[in-house]
Amino acid sequence: MKKITICLFFISITSLFFFHSLSATNGEKGSMSVSFSKETETCIECHRVYSPGIVADWQKSRHAMTAPKDAISKPALQRRISAEAVPQNLAGVVVGCYECHSLNGTTHKDNFDHFDLKINVIVSPNDCKVCHVKEVEEYGRSKKAHALSNLDKNPVYSLLVGSITGMKTVKGGRMTTPGPSENTKNETCYACHGTEVKLKGMKKIATDLGDIEVPDLTNLPNHGVGRVNPDGSSGACSACHARHRFSIEVARKPYTCSQCHLEPDTPAYNVYMESKHGNIFSSQHQQWKFDSVPWVVGKDFNAPTCATCHNSLVVNENGDVIQNRNHDFGSRLWVRIFGLIYSHPQPKDGRTYLIKNKDGLPLPTTFGGELASDFLIDKKEQEKRLAAMEKTCRACHSRSWTEGHFTKFNLTVAETDKMVATSTIILADAWKKGLANKKNPFDEKIEHLWIKEWLFYGNSVRYGSAMSGPDYTAFKNGWWDLTTNLEKMRSTVYPLKK
Amino acid sequence: MKKITICLFFISITSLFFFHSLSATNGEKGSMSVSFSKETETCIECHRVYSPGIVADWQKSRHAMTAPKDAISKPALQRRISAEAVPQNLAGVVVGCYECHSLNGTTHKDNFDHFDLKINVIVSPNDCKVCHVKEVEEYGRSKKAHALSNLDKNPVYSLLVGSITGMKTVKGGRMTTPGPSENTKNETCYACHGTEVKLKGMKKIATDLGDIEVPDLTNLPNHGVGRVNPDGSSGACSACHARHRFSIEVARKPYTCSQCHLEPDTPAYNVYMESKHGNIFSSQHQQWKFDSVPWVVGKDFNAPTCATCHNSLVVNENGDVIQNRNHDFGSRLWVRIFGLIYSHPQPKDGRTYLIKNKDGLPLPTTFGGELASDFLIDKKEQEKRLAAMEKTCRACHSRSWTEGHFTKFNLTVAETDKMVATSTIILADAWKKGLANKKNPFDEKIEHLWIKEWLFYGNSVRYGSAMSGPDYTAFKNGWWDLTTNLEKMRSTVYPLKK
Amino acid sequence: MKKITICLFFISITSLFFFHSLSATNGEKGSMSVSFSKETETCIECHRVYSPGIVADWQKSRHAMTAPKDAISKPALQRRISAEAVPQNLAGVVVGCYECHSLNGTTHKDNFDHFDLKINVIVSPNDCKVCHVKEVEEYGRSKKAHALSNLDKNPVYSLLVGSITGMKTVKGGRMTTPGPSENTKNETCYACHGTEVKLKGMKKIATDLGDIEVPDLTNLPNHGVGRVNPDGSSGACSACHARHRFSIEVARKPYTCSQCHLEPDTPAYNVYMESKHGNIFSSQHQQWKFDSVPWVVGKDFNAPTCATCHNSLVVNENGDVIQNRNHDFGSRLWVRIFGLIYSHPQPKDGRTYLIKNKDGLPLPTTFGGELASDFLIDKKEQEKRLAAMEKTCRACHSRSWTEGHFTKFNLTVAETDKMVATSTIILADAWKKGLANKKNPFDEKIEHLWIKEWLFYGNSVRYGSAMSGPDYTAFKNGWWDLTTNLEKMRSTVYPLKK
Repeated sequence: MKKITICLFFISITSLFFFHSLSATNGEKGSMSVSFSKETETCIECHRVYSPGIVADWQKSRHAMTAPKDAISKPALQRRISAEAVPQNLAGVVVGCYECHSLNGTTHKDNFDHFDLKINVIVSPNDCKVCHVKEVEEYGRSKKAHALSNLDKNPVYSLLVGSITGMKTVKGGRMTTPGPSENTKNETCYACHGTEVKLKGMKKIATDLGDIEVPDLTNLPNHGVGRVNPDGSSGACSACHARHRFSIEVARKPYTCSQCHLEPDTPAYNVYMESKHGNIFSSQHQQWKFDSVPWVVGKDFNAPTCATCHNSLVVNENGDVIQNRNHDFGSRLWVRIFGLIYSHPQPKDGRTYLIKNKDGLPLPTTFGGELASDFLIDKKEQEKRLAAMEKTCRACHSRSWTEGHFTKFNLTVAETDKMVATSTIILADAWKKGLANKKNPFDEKIEHLWIKEWLFYGNSVRYGSAMSGPDYTAFKNGWWDLTTNLEKMRSTVYPLKK
Repeated sequence: MKKITICLFFISITSLFFFHSLSATNGEKGSMSVSFSKETETCIECHRVYSPGIVADWQKSRHAMTAPKDAISKPALQRRISAEAVPQNLAGVVVGCYECHSLNGTTHKDNFDHFDLKINVIVSPNDCKVCHVKEVEEYGRSKKAHALSNLDKNPVYSLLVGSITGMKTVKGGRMTTPGPSENTKNETCYACHGTEVKLKGMKKIATDLGDIEVPDLTNLPNHGVGRVNPDGSSGACSACHARHRFSIEVARKPYTCSQCHLEPDTPAYNVYMESKHGNIFSSQHQQWKFDSVPWVVGKDFNAPTCATCHNSLVVNENGDVIQNRNHDFGSRLWVRIFGLIYSHPQPKDGRTYLIKNKDGLPLPTTFGGELASDFLIDKKEQEKRLAAMEKTCRACHSRSWTEGHFTKFNLTVAETDKMVATSTIILADAWKKGLANKKNPFDEKIEHLWIKEWLFYGNSVRYGSAMSGPDYTAFKNGWWDLTTNLEKMRSTVYPLKK
Repeated sequence: MKKITICLFFISITSLFFFHSLSATNGEKGSMSVSFSKETETCIECHRVYSPGIVADWQKSRHAMTAPKDAISKPALQRRISAEAVPQNLAGVVVGCYECHSLNGTTHKDNFDHFDLKINVIVSPNDCKVCHVKEVEEYGRSKKAHALSNLDKNPVYSLLVGSITGMKTVKGGRMTTPGPSENTKNETCYACHGTEVKLKGMKKIATDLGDIEVPDLTNLPNHGVGRVNPDGSSGACSACHARHRFSIEVARKPYTCSQCHLEPDTPAYNVYMESKHGNIFSSQHQQWKFDSVPWVVGKDFNAPTCATCHNSLVVNENGDVIQNRNHDFGSRLWVRIFGLIYSHPQPKDGRTYLIKNKDGLPLPTTFGGELASDFLIDKKEQEKRLAAMEKTCRACHSRSWTEGHFTKFNLTVAETDKMVATSTIILADAWKKGLANKKNPFDEKIEHLWIKEWLFYGNSVRYGSAMSGPDYTAFKNGWWDLTTNLEKMRSTVYPLKK
C-alpha cells in the first residue's frame, strides 16, 4: 500500500505539467473553456503512466476538446451529436474516461469498483447513445448490429462455420470434425461478426500498483460489429471509430472498412482501391478534409470513399443535402451481392436469421435461387434506394453515365447468378451420382468448389462491377475463376464428357 | 419552363459568390490574370449545382488557372503543352468546360444542343491534341491506343476472351458457351482495353431543370486506354489523367497504373510496391514534388515511380535531360514480358493484330516459341532502348549495378520462357492423347493450367525480376507456382509416371 | 583525358552553387557547424552529375547534416550512435561518401583505386559498426544475419529451394530438375536471404569520363538481410535503412518489412495492414513522428508499426523505457510461427543450420512435430520474452486484454500445428501406398499440397492471430484453406472414403 502511495505522489507531481500542456493544446484548437470532470482527472493521473498510448490518443480526440453543451448548440447540419439534450452532469465537461466508462452502470455486468470509482470495462453502443442517439438507433436496425446472431442463430451458416473452421483429424481415411473451439470461431468469423462477451466472475491481477480485482470477461479482445456486450446491447462503435480517438476521419477512410471487407469473400476494399475512385483517393486524399461535418463534395473531397456512398451526410457547397447520414449500413442498398449463394433484394430486417425460404431454411433464396420475397424489400423500395444512390453519383457524373453504370451492374449481377445456378446443377448431379453426400453441403471437395463459385468468384465479379474495378471482374477471382472453377466442377462430375 | 427560370435565377445569385472565391483562390496560386470564357461561365453556373464534384475538381486543376498563351510561353523544358500555337479563341482564357467540350464539333457524332451551346459529350484525344499535339501523336503510335482492336481484331485473343468471360451452361455433362455479352466484355477486358462508343440516337432524360435531350451512347461508362470515341479517335487521356483535374501528379503516381497493371496477369503495381523503389515511394513520397516539369531526379523525387522509367521527362539538377517525355508507352521497352505465351522483342507497330507468325496467327511467336521477327524490333533497336533505360537507372545506381540488374533479368526471362515451353509440350501431349481438344486451346481444365503457366506465373516472375520484387519471383505466383502448376499438368497427362 | 579535364572543370563551377545551397539547407535544420571532408567533396563533385539521385538523397539524410562528435554528445536515450568513441578523423565531419566507402579498406576485397581515392564498393555492417557498434553486434546474433547460411548450409532447405526454383523439363512423362541456376536463386530465395558477393577480378567499364577499372563482383545487385560481403561480414544494413538516406523513418514504416514479409508464406505485412493497428497507421501516420529518438508512445505515434514491437526503443512521455532498442530481430519473440512445418520455441542461436533434431536433420522439429529442445529457448526464457512483449501492449491495452490476446494466440498456434500434423499423417500414408516418393518430400503434387498446409495456411492463421487480422485466419489462406486443402489431400489419398 505504501508503494501505491509513493507512486501516486509521483504521478500527481508530473500530472501538473500534463494538464498544463493539455489546455495549451486545446487552446490552439479554439475551444477555450473545456474542463474535465474530477473523476476523469483521477483516471488520467494513473493511466497516463500505465496506459500512456490511449490517454495520448484520447487527448488528441474531439472528445477531449469538446463539452456536449457546445457540441449540441451547433447548427443542425454541423452537429455531431444527435441527442436533443444531454444529462446535466455530462453537458459541461469534456467527454473523458469517466464520462463514458461510468454510464448506465446498473445494466453493466462488467461494472466494478476501481480505485473508488464504479467503472464499466466495455463502453457499449447503449452508452454512446446518450449523445449519439440517432446513430445508435439506426445502427441497431442494421445487419451489422445482429452480425453475431445472424451467424449463430442460423443453422445453415453455423454448419458452414463448423465445417470450415476448427480442428480436423483423419481416421481410416475419413475426416473427423469435432467442431471449432470457441477460440477459433472468435479468431475467424466472430472477429468481424463479434463475440458474446459474458462475465465469468472477478479475477485478481497483478499491477504495478499492487493486486487489483477486475471483471473476468469471456471472448475478449474483440471489436466485431455485432459484439454482444455485458450490458446486453449489440455492436461495437469502436469497430469503425477506433479507440480512443473515436474519430470521424478514421471511419471515413477506406482502411477502416478494409478490416473486414476484403478479398476473397467480400473484396470491397480491394475493388475500391483499384478503381478510379480509389486511385484518386490514394493520389490526393492527403489534401482532403476528412473531419468536416457536413461533408462537402468537391470542397472536402474529390472522390467518394466507402463512407460517402454508404453512410455519411453529404452536401453540396450550397449546403443542399445530397445524402443524409445513416448508420443503418445497408439501408442505402437495394441489392445484396455477397455472402450468399445468389444476389437478392436487401432483407427488410437486420436480423436475417428470421428469414424462411420455401425450403424452410433461413436463407434469402433457395439453393435453386428462388427468392424468399416476404422477407426482402420490394421492387418499389429497391427503386427508391437506387434513385437515392444515383443522386450521390450525380454529384460528379451525368445522369446518362450513372444510368449506364447501373444498367451494366444489373446485367452483371444477373449473369453471375446464372453462373452460380449452373454450378448448383452440377453439384446436385454429384449428389445424385453419389460422388458427394448432400447431408453437409459444405465439407467435400466438390462442395468446396461450389462454395468458391458463389462466395468468392460471383461476389468478386459483382463488386468489381459495382465499383468499376476491372481486375476483380476479370482475372482476380473474376470471370477467369468463375469459368475455370466451373470447368473443374464439370470435369470432375462428368469426366468422360468435354 | 417556369421552374427552370426560377432555378437559373437562384443559381445566378449564388454564382456571384462562387466566382469571387474562385479568383481569390487563383490569386493565391500566383496566376493573376486568368479569365473565363462566357460559355464556360454559363456551364459552371448550372453544373456547380448539378454536378458540384467535377466543377470543384476542375477548379483545383491547372487547367482552371492557366490560359494557353501563358502555358506556351514557358521555357522548352518547363512547357506542359507541345503545340507550336494555340487557336486565338482559346489562347487567352483558361481551359474550361466549353473550351474542351466544344472542340471539333463537326467530327463528333456525340455533339448536341445543350442549353443553346453545341457540346460534345466525350472529349477525345483528338480534342486534347489542340494543345498537346506531341503527346497525342506519340500515344497514337502506342499499343495502348489500339488496345481494343488488338483484342477485337485478333481471332486468337477473341477466342480467349470468349472462352473465359460470359455465361456458361452445362447440358448432358457438356459445357455450352454462348459467348460473352457486350456488357460482360465491357466490364472485364474492355474496361482496361476500351470500348467502342457509338451513337444510338438521342434520348430524353428527366433533370431538375426539366426534360432535356442528350445523345444516347453505347458502351459507356468507360475510360479504357484504347476506347474508340464517337469522333473516330482512339484512346482516353482520362484513363491516366483522371477527370476533371487531369493532373500530372495523379498520372505520375503508381496508383494510376495500378488500375490495370495488377496481379495475377500483369503484376506491375504489386511488384513495384514490394520493391525497394516502392518501399521508398510509400515511405517518403509525401515529401516529393509530383507536379514539377521537368521532373528533377533527387530534388523532386528519390525513387522512380512507373512514370519515371516509362514516360516522364526526367532531368538532373543541371537540367540535363536523362529521358525525354514519351506518351508512346512501350517505346522505351525492348522486350515484352506479359500477355503472351512467350516473351519477345517489342512489336514495331502498336497495332499488334497486324502481326502474322509462321503459323499464320496474329501472335508475336508461335505456340512453340518461334519469333515473328518481321513484326518485332531488331537486336539493334533493343540495345538502343536498353541503353536509354540504363541511363535512367544510373541516375542513382552505378554502371556495374545497372548492368548486373539487366543481366539477371535477361537470364530470368529466358528461363521462364523455357518453363512455358515445357508446359506447352505437355499440353501438346494431352491433345495427342485425346485428353483435351486442340480446337479451342482455352476452354478445358488442362488448358487452363497451361494458360496460368504463362499468363500468370511466367509473367509474374519476369515482373518480379524486372523490378526486384522477390515475392513475385518466389511464392506469389512465382517459381513456386511455375513449378507446382507444371507438376499438376505433368501428373494429369502422365498419371502413372513420377 | 582532355575530355575528363573539361568535364571536371564544368563540374567545379556548378558545384559552387551546390555547396552553397547545401549549407543553407543544413542551416535551417539547426546544425550550424557541419563540414565535409575534402574527399567527400571530391566524390560529390562528380557524382552529383553522374549519379544525382543518390547524392540528393544523401544530402537530405541525417548523415549529411551531423558530425559524429555532435551525435555522440547527446543524452543516452537520444543517441543514435552507440560507439563510446569515434575515430578522430571521422568525428568532426559529416558522414559522407568517403567516410563510409573507405573504412577498413584492407579487409575489403572490393577496395579499388577510384580517381586517386581507395574506395570500397560495398559498405558492410562491419563498416557501419564504427559508429553503430551495439546495433551491428546485436544484428550479428540474429537469424537475419545468417539468413544465407541458414538456407545454404541446411540440406533440407537446399532441397526445397532446388525443387521449387529453377528450370524443369519433362521427358518420357518424368520431370527432370537440373537444379536452379545461381541467378534464379539470387532472384528468389536469396533476394531476401542475401547472396554471397565475391570478387571475380577487375573489369573495365566505359563512363562519360572515359574508361575506368572497377571490381567485378558476383551476385549483385542484392541487399538481402544475410548478404555475405567481400570483407567477410554478413548482412546489409541497407536492407531496411534504404540507401542513401539510411533513415530511421523508413525502417520504422511497415513498407520496409513488407519487402520480404508478405503473403503467402510470411504475411506479416498483409495481416498488419488489415488489423486495427494497420488501419490506424494508414489513416493517421502522416501526423506521426517517425524520426524521434527515443520513440514516445502516444506522443510520436498512436499505434505500433512492426518496429515498435520488434526492435525500436520505446518510452512513455516520462521517458520510462518500455522496450530497449534491439537489432537482434527475433530476440523479443518466444515462439517461431513461420517458415517451418510446426511452430516451435525460438532457436537459441541465429545460425539455425546448427540445429539437429531426433532424426538427425537440421530442423527445429521432426516431421512428426517433436521439438529439438536442446537448440531452442526454454520455457523460462519464453515466459520472460512474452512478459516483455506484453509490456509494450500494455502501453495502450489493459492487462486483461493483453493476456486474453496471447491466450487466444497460444490456442491458435496449437490448433494449426495439429492441422499440419493431420496433413503429415496423410502424406505418410501416400508415401506408404506408393502414391508418392518419400525420397524428395518437396517435388510431387501431394507433397506440394502438404507444403501449402504449413508454409502458407498454418503460417497465415498464426500471423492472423498474432496481429488480429481476421481475413488471414478465415478466408485468405486461413482456416478455409487449411480445411479445403486437407480435404484435397484426403480425397486424393483415400479416394473411395468420404
